[in-house]
Amino acid sequence: MNDQEYMKMAIELARSAEGQTSPNPMVGAVVVKNNQIVGMGAHLKAGEPHAEVHAIRMAGDKARGATIYVTLEPCSHHGKTPPCADLIISTGIERVVVASTDSNPLVSGRGISKLRDAGIVVDTGVLEHEALELNDVFFHFIETGLPFVTLKSAASLDGKTATATGESKWITGEAARQDVHRLRHVHDAILVGVNTVLTDDPSLTTRLPGGGKNPVRIILDSTLRTPMDARVIVDGEAATWLITTTKANSDKIAVLEAAGVQVIQLETDRIDIRDVLSALGNRGITSVFVEGGAEVNGSFLKAGAFQQVISYIAPKLIGGKLAPSVFGGEGILHMDDVVDLQIKDVTRIGEDIRVMAKPR
Amino acid sequence: MNDQEYMKMAIELARSAEGQTSPNPMVGAVVVKNNQIVGMGAHLKAGEPHAEVHAIRMAGDKARGATIYVTLEPCSHHGKTPPCADLIISTGIERVVVASTDSNPLVSGRGISKLRDAGIVVDTGVLEHEALELNDVFFHFIETGLPFVTLKSAASLDGKTATATGESKWITGEAARQDVHRLRHVHDAILVGVNTVLTDDPSLTTRLPGGGKNPVRIILDSTLRTPMDARVIVDGEAATWLITTTKANSDKIAVLEAAGVQVIQLETDRIDIRDVLSALGNRGITSVFVEGGAEVNGSFLKAGAFQQVISYIAPKLIGGKLAPSVFGGEGILHMDDVVDLQIKDVTRIGEDIRVMAKPR
Repeated sequence: MNDQEYMKMAIELARSAEGQTSPNPMVGAVVVKNNQIVGMGAHLKAGEPHAEVHAIRMAGDKARGATIYVTLEPCSHHGKTPPCADLIISTGIERVVVASTDSNPLVSGRGISKLRDAGIVVDTGVLEHEALELNDVFFHFIETGLPFVTLKSAASLDGKTATATGESKWITGEAARQDVHRLRHVHDAILVGVNTVLTDDPSLTTRLPGGGKNPVRIILDSTLRTPMDARVIVDGEAATWLITTTKANSDKIAVLEAAGVQVIQLETDRIDIRDVLSALGNRGITSVFVEGGAEVNGSFLKAGAFQQVISYIAPKLIGGKLAPSVFGGEGILHMDDVVDLQIKDVTRIGEDIRVMAKPR
Repeated sequence: MNDQEYMKMAIELARSAEGQTSPNPMVGAVVVKNNQIVGMGAHLKAGEPHAEVHAIRMAGDKARGATIYVTLEPCSHHGKTPPCADLIISTGIERVVVASTDSNPLVSGRGISKLRDAGIVVDTGVLEHEALELNDVFFHFIETGLPFVTLKSAASLDGKTATATGESKWITGEAARQDVHRLRHVHDAILVGVNTVLTDDPSLTTRLPGGGKNPVRIILDSTLRTPMDARVIVDGEAATWLITTTKANSDKIAVLEAAGVQVIQLETDRIDIRDVLSALGNRGITSVFVEGGAEVNGSFLKAGAFQQVISYIAPKLIGGKLAPSVFGGEGILHMDDVVDLQIKDVTRIGEDIRVMAKPR
């Protein structure tokens, strides 16, 4: 086993807590002594011990003289837990291998310096790319203060989300729909437009066998047309936030707030996606899963306000010049301006295809 | 090596002649004696020897007492070449393993009967499914008298073939465009609508490094609007057939024919896709590669007149309610009627994705 292999194990440990560490990153750690794994750990939840703490505890006395592989630079500051760099030093670990440095300005580079000052050998950059990808949400949020936005679409092979007459159930199969619920589970928030609420009255909850975490439900609703008997208002399954404008009626705001809904009123008379993301970032939302419809998707596309696209492609042909597509609005007008993506993954999910891509 | 492995080799031999055997099927043969391959062959071109002939010639005296693996039932009738069943019998081969029986009514089952009557052991159905897929074009043509139709599309991840302003160069990358040329090479004909000729003035030829076979260029042109200086009329690179209606001007027909173009006039005042396919089948076209545009694609979709879809998906987002999609026209109006496909293959081609699917 070499450094890469141990680090790969640490990354897998980290990923096992996907969806439950926000607003913290996923982190994994492996302690190795004489080519034997003597400790393993992952950060499981904000406020709870960091990965290094779990791994070092498991190693016990064997940590002295050992090497620790950790996917993210150990912290050097007192946060909700004591600094991991101090713990590593006091334990007598002789070598630390780090995948990615922390982009949190409170930490970046300082953990590594502290370790080196204590005479510990520190090697960095092992599987750095994989570790950065693992925490793309966290790094984006730390660097921009804005949530990481994933646009989801589900369409036929020819890009249609419904027939010209508006029929759309079901385009994708059961396995793809389950996969969407898994993605809801790992996001802080899910976002739709009021038209989706008016048309489908969705619950926007995570329905997985064995349960899952519900994201905050965000509805873009410039004039507060969301009906008081909509599922997202009355079902009490998860928090619901309505984002509205200066055009909103203040009585309706009061009624919604009395029903337990958080109303976020922007200072403009129309909804600008950038303002939405600032408002969400300010409230600690690190990731948003955008589930349409066409007009909302089109607004995110036009604003260039997304970090990932997940498209489910169903083995169906619908056709029709007027049948709706994933993105509404006017779209991108010139080929020189179209959004260039890099495809990260193509997977068959049941009978459908899932494409994951990021803007270049 | 077992029967499946030898047959797999025979199928690969057959496939090596893809694009050059029409209207004959691709066929491969392997002769094995004492677990040694003593002969191999493939049918290379209509009118030339069948696969069995090549393989038996290569085996020479060693064919006596051997087993021959052949992807398609050996023929028993005198066509352009003598019957292969007779050759196998006279050679002293003791066992014949067949993947698929021939759906040509002149042959089906007769080759096998003839061999068995001569005391040869015949085993059938080894890799039958693979062998049927290999010659899906041939079997379709033999069974229906109509060409096997492949609809090709190239669109952005959100299903758009151009921006709302009509810009479309280039959606897919160089590798995908090369792949399209490879597909032109293996088809008897390529088909577009007159609007594509008027808009793009394409040459519709096969441009591959090392060269390739040009398909017959078919233009659907109900009122003969194809300009006399269009590339497909003047370049002399490949045969061009215009399919038109009773609305065509007879002087224009004469001018086109004088320029070397074959004009096929249907008996109706509009173009029905079924009539087009009959006309092409009657003229020996076994496969058609449909390269759009939207209206022509939409007509094939509406008529349910296709056996395969090949979609290139580019890592781009274009968006726009009015930006054109792959299929024009009214499309399928109800979800119960949408065309259900079975995905056969998903491959990354350069930076694009290619999806191959067939109607269920």
